[in-house]
Amino acid sequence: MIEVEQDVLRQNEITAARNRGYFEARNILALNLVSSPGSGKTALLERTLQDLKEEIPFYVIEGDQQTLNDAERIAAHGVPVRQINTGKGCHLESDMVHEAVRQLSIEPNSVLMIENVGNLVCPSMFNLGEQKRVVIISITEGEDKPIKYPDMFHTADLCLINKMDLQPYVKCDLQKLRDYALQVNPNLKFFEVSATEGLGMEAWYEWLKTEMQTVQNAEV
Amino acid sequence: MIEVEQDVLRQNEITAARNRGYFEARNILALNLVSSPGSGKTALLERTLQDLKEEIPFYVIEGDQQTLNDAERIAAHGVPVRQINTGKGCHLESDMVHEAVRQLSIEPNSVLMIENVGNLVCPSMFNLGEQKRVVIISITEGEDKPIKYPDMFHTADLCLINKMDLQPYVKCDLQKLRDYALQVNPNLKFFEVSATEGLGMEAWYEWLKTEMQTVQNAEV
Repeated sequence: MIEVEQDVLRQNEITAARNRGYFEARNILALNLVSSPGSGKTALLERTLQDLKEEIPFYVIEGDQQTLNDAERIAAHGVPVRQINTGKGCHLESDMVHEAVRQLSIEPNSVLMIENVGNLVCPSMFNLGEQKRVVIISITEGEDKPIKYPDMFHTADLCLINKMDLQPYVKCDLQKLRDYALQVNPNLKFFEVSATEGLGMEAWYEWLKTEMQTVQNAEV
Repeated sequence: MIEVEQDVLRQNEITAARNRGYFEARNILALNLVSSPGSGKTALLERTLQDLKEEIPFYVIEGDQQTLNDAERIAAHGVPVRQINTGKGCHLESDMVHEAVRQLSIEPNSVLMIENVGNLVCPSMFNLGEQKRVVIISITEGEDKPIKYPDMFHTADLCLINKMDLQPYVKCDLQKLRDYALQVNPNLKFFEVSATEGLGMEAWYEWLKTEMQTVQNAEV
């Protein structure tokens, strides 16, 4: 089993590299959004598109085992989107993204948001060719998730702590959450947000614009 | 890859059957608790042990990628527990349970609670030999999870809707949640609970005692 898994991961790395080359060639910032089910990834995307779509050309890939629900939510904002249904699968792989990227015909200097299947384990192992990985955690999940699911936090670049509007009603030690996450990844950055209430979104938007600049100024 | 996966699943079924035989021989009710990360499985277990441990002999197996946190929380209640750390693994398998069950030396007429890795996808495929599968969903996760992650709800016997104390602060249509779940599994039963506040726990306790009776009265 282990050998076959390594073959799958190796093949995934190769197509991920091809995706990366494609993104580089068109100055596309590609983000891989990962989290538990129900942490608010789609709500966060919706708020971001609503606030920035006049300013930034967005494209979205939605991953779920079943349903077109998320793609429909995104399409309602007038943003090009492709839904990938993984069936029994628990994560997106780079060949699925490769296919969806071509269907989207992404314009240069855009942002591609890839919303992965809700799963704090398996997607961590599958590079999609993204420039940055963003892990979203809802404060309702509790502060110990970064050490219980270390691979996901170890491989992420940014951590968005979502549902901050629920802070008065739940027991979640935010300092401990950050400390645990930094324990597995000392380079992780954090923003505290509430996607539904629109709290703290400005810092995330600034980060997004800075990353776009970095992609556009990069000497490949 | 598919063939290897089938081998793994077939081997898992065989050891699951062995676990099932062991449970039958000792009249042990074994429950497999599955959910997203942070839905409150451990809090629910803690409340259940606290309320029923004088009445029912409990044993617990805790699954997580990393940390002994959950086992320590359970051990604080004086209940025998084994922690399984799956490392890169995203679910418990029947051989891990087989090993932990022997280490626990479970007395006849007991209840074994198996808390799976927090993951709404992969654990659905792996039978552990349990009599019943209990899926926990927090109302903060939103009503669409049963149709986005249908396999888990399809294979469960009981659905505990947790964190009901947060109902005034989140948008979650409980009727839709139940309808979606029944769409993938018409036989699913539901109880609404708040493990931290101790709300609605009686119905779950009654269910547990009825299942214990069923196991003890079964003609094998």
